Amino acid sequence: MAKNIKKRSDDYAQWYLDVIKAAKLADHSPVRGCMVIRPEGFAIWEAIQRDLDRRFKATGHVNAYFPLLIPQSFLTKEAQHVEGFALECAVVTHSKLEKDGEGKLRPASPIEEPLIIRPTSETIIGHMYSEWVQSYRDLPLLINQWCNVMRWEMRTRLFLRTSEFLWQEGHTAHETEAEAQEETLKMLDVYADFAENVLAVPVVRGAKTDSEKFPGAVTTYCIEGLMQDGKALQMGTSHNLGQNFSKAFEIKFLGRTQQQEFAWTTSWGVSTRLIGAVIMAHSDDEGLVLPPRVAPDVVAIVPIFKTPEDEAKVRGFVDKLVAALTGDASAAKTAHHGLERYVYNTANEQRILADFRDARPGDKQYHWEQRGVPFRIEVGPRDVDGGAFVLKSRIGGTKEIIKLEDLQPGWLKARLDAAHDALFQKAVAYREANTRDAATYDELKEIIKGQGGFVRCFFKPDRAAEAKIKEQTKATVRCIPFAQPGTSGKCIYSGEETTTQVLFAQAY
Amino acid sequence: MAKNIKKRSDDYAQWYLDVIKAAKLADHSPVRGCMVIRPEGFAIWEAIQRDLDRRFKATGHVNAYFPLLIPQSFLTKEAQHVEGFALECAVVTHSKLEKDGEGKLRPASPIEEPLIIRPTSETIIGHMYSEWVQSYRDLPLLINQWCNVMRWEMRTRLFLRTSEFLWQEGHTAHETEAEAQEETLKMLDVYADFAENVLAVPVVRGAKTDSEKFPGAVTTYCIEGLMQDGKALQMGTSHNLGQNFSKAFEIKFLGRTQQQEFAWTTSWGVSTRLIGAVIMAHSDDEGLVLPPRVAPDVVAIVPIFKTPEDEAKVRGFVDKLVAALTGDASAAKTAHHGLERYVYNTANEQRILADFRDARPGDKQYHWEQRGVPFRIEVGPRDVDGGAFVLKSRIGGTKEIIKLEDLQPGWLKARLDAAHDALFQKAVAYREANTRDAATYDELKEIIKGQGGFVRCFFKPDRAAEAKIKEQTKATVRCIPFAQPGTSGKCIYSGEETTTQVLFAQAY
Ligand SMILES: [Zn+2]
Ligand SMILES: [Zn+2]
Repeated sequence: MAKNIKKRSDDYAQWYLDVIKAAKLADHSPVRGCMVIRPEGFAIWEAIQRDLDRRFKATGHVNAYFPLLIPQSFLTKEAQHVEGFALECAVVTHSKLEKDGEGKLRPASPIEEPLIIRPTSETIIGHMYSEWVQSYRDLPLLINQWCNVMRWEMRTRLFLRTSEFLWQEGHTAHETEAEAQEETLKMLDVYADFAENVLAVPVVRGAKTDSEKFPGAVTTYCIEGLMQDGKALQMGTSHNLGQNFSKAFEIKFLGRTQQQEFAWTTSWGVSTRLIGAVIMAHSDDEGLVLPPRVAPDVVAIVPIFKTPEDEAKVRGFVDKLVAALTGDASAAKTAHHGLERYVYNTANEQRILADFRDARPGDKQYHWEQRGVPFRIEVGPRDVDGGAFVLKSRIGGTKEIIKLEDLQPGWLKARLDAAHDALFQKAVAYREANTRDAATYDELKEIIKGQGGFVRCFFKPDRAAEAKIKEQTKATVRCIPFAQPGTSGKCIYSGEETTTQVLFAQAY
Repeated sequence: MAKNIKKRSDDYAQWYLDVIKAAKLADHSPVRGCMVIRPEGFAIWEAIQRDLDRRFKATGHVNAYFPLLIPQSFLTKEAQHVEGFALECAVVTHSKLEKDGEGKLRPASPIEEPLIIRPTSETIIGHMYSEWVQSYRDLPLLINQWCNVMRWEMRTRLFLRTSEFLWQEGHTAHETEAEAQEETLKMLDVYADFAENVLAVPVVRGAKTDSEKFPGAVTTYCIEGLMQDGKALQMGTSHNLGQNFSKAFEIKFLGRTQQQEFAWTTSWGVSTRLIGAVIMAHSDDEGLVLPPRVAPDVVAIVPIFKTPEDEAKVRGFVDKLVAALTGDASAAKTAHHGLERYVYNTANEQRILADFRDARPGDKQYHWEQRGVPFRIEVGPRDVDGGAFVLKSRIGGTKEIIKLEDLQPGWLKARLDAAHDALFQKAVAYREANTRDAATYDELKEIIKGQGGFVRCFFKPDRAAEAKIKEQTKATVRCIPFAQPGTSGKCIYSGEETTTQVLFAQAY
């Protein structure tokens, strides 16, 4: 039992913070609501970025960069958009600081029109697209941006909800409504595939109800994951914006029939919140558990020795072990205070580490366990004699003795793939065990109050009903899943017959 | 002669803007002084990031992310720093917008302590380091951040000087002064090597004079390039910050002798300004010329045909050509409106393109010439008959006929390497021809007024003298080069004997 980490069952919120602290993933900053993403946490974000960026480019998208600051008047051009974002934005009003006579500084040089730090970039990108698009030949425009955004949050939680966060926002413009819809769903699929096959978090794909959709969207689609405390987490959204923004920003083009037409636009995004999802979906009372495909260190080798002779013996074995695991006798190495890292997968920047620091083997084991490294290896003099090592799996918690001679090429990859699958299956099983059907509103209330998780039920989406249910249960419609039963039933709230089944849950 | 691009000799400033516009690298934004980096320009930044990031990691650095907003009080903690940055910063004073009754918005909810958008992050990072560093075992801290920063600029120029720009800032903390100095120079070398071996821009390494150094630094080192109009461009800086910031932010540690000591820190950065350097150093009156190692597209193949039969014939040849150039008969391909792109170098995201769009071959040639693609290839039916193609070099302007059968593996790489070398040598020759010696202040004034370029002379750095020279000539000391003559001479300004030789130039 980790002393520096609360048990999930005792205090889930504190457990989450403890896991982050123990693994040094992030820190609170002196600016309220803003976080510092520490190197250990940022490496996970880099892995996420690298993989998603490849997927975006493979589907024809290119990256670009748009300004951080947006004229406040831009916000007002789309009626729903302003309602959604004006209430929580950082406003820049001055362009310098001056001394106030007491050695302190005060804002000076007020600027003409206040600027806001982008909460999202539909407006500024809409403006630019209106200049770039003239003819249907200029379409589709398929652009993505990796950047920081800001939404002033009162109650923040590292990674899950912070005033500033990092994300990517895709913004596309199309000639037809059908193409925009196809793009919207395609990118949702990219997200879902990434969540499941890279982060090992199973997700439900579906549509948001009107009351939960993006301010300015025609339809918002999302992927929803279930965390270990039974709360849902929205892990990515993809919006079909129809012609709302193209009309607000005049993204017009000369169509094939020589008519001026408004473009059809989409936007889609995922953020550093995904790191929170990874932590909450997989970690345990011992600390972080990282899905193998985004773990910066995939194996931590802990050598055990007391005498210099034993050290030499173990060192020789570790060198062979590293060569066998990386498949490269001269894998690039960096060393820092006795901590050696060897390149395992160049494209994904994944490494194997050997911990020769001056510390107790038990402490090192514990150290790498809390940091979620998928596999730890122990090698002592007796193991060397037997030509073997001890393999500990972070995910299964198992301990095996493996012969060095059994490490065929691809052995580690196969182990990591199996660990990924096991992690994913465990999360699927948890979600299935925590998805319950409700036939009545009372049942829904009981489940939410009792076990939590997803509640599946027939429901006719309705703003007033959803507001009331949220007030009474803190649960919201997470989505209208694409997978519908094809039958009908009574809406749990209105009692009317409906074919629409939804998932309710409390959410982050 | 390109009609949409001014000649350099007629109007250099307009030429620069025209080149950017023709290649679609960037655009002005509706926010004064902020630019939009378009996909074609951003791909160059991605190439720069990818290469530098590898170099930073190979030298033991890791990435992290610190908040965009900095409490204004942080600025005042280092005396020189506040003088350097308070005058040109974006100040956030409110946390929401509200309707003003006339349908417009106005800032509301004033925040307690105004926040500034980071102009650079020494202060906030210093604060965090003070929390992370306790013992000499925690050192060195070697962290880099890729991010956006903001300095309110009155006179802006795309890429070279914009209010918001993208950059990386390395921030390191060390146990000893010697280690900090070693780091400072090491990173300057990384920059210089990158500038010359990737961007093909020769640079002078040296130290800044006191009046030109970073506000808060003990010493600032820089790399300086020379642009085609004879103006210098600072392309990267590396600062030895001594204990200035560690004292201001209390970055203290328990040393090896059980004493509390202040850490020694450094910082170093390059920015999207490097894209401006690439454009200004290499491009010509026909448009952009890209150094081969950051060119997203390395070859543009333009097929020539009139009949469907000829198209089929040319298409068959192009397929073989692509396979020979990429060394991969099934290179990953994307296609978009007849524009086909094939992966040439996966790690660097470089591609070979075949332009099968519905347009005239001459227009296509012109199109890719203006975009700076290192090699263009023309293939018509007669070329196919001869088993050959026409190769046009963007850099040399040469035209050769090459037999397809002569394309051995590595042929394209060798060509690109040779093109890189030629581009670099051309820039070296230009710089050498435009570096002149001055023995007196009058000579300096004449050269600056006449030919421009670097003026090399003996000079005793002195704030007052430098201010006066700047006022009279608009030239500044670009650096005190590491390469010193080892002799002494008379200071061109004071007449005193000195061993210090400097480079003066007007600069961007
Ligand atoms: Zn703090
Ligand atoms: Zn505009």
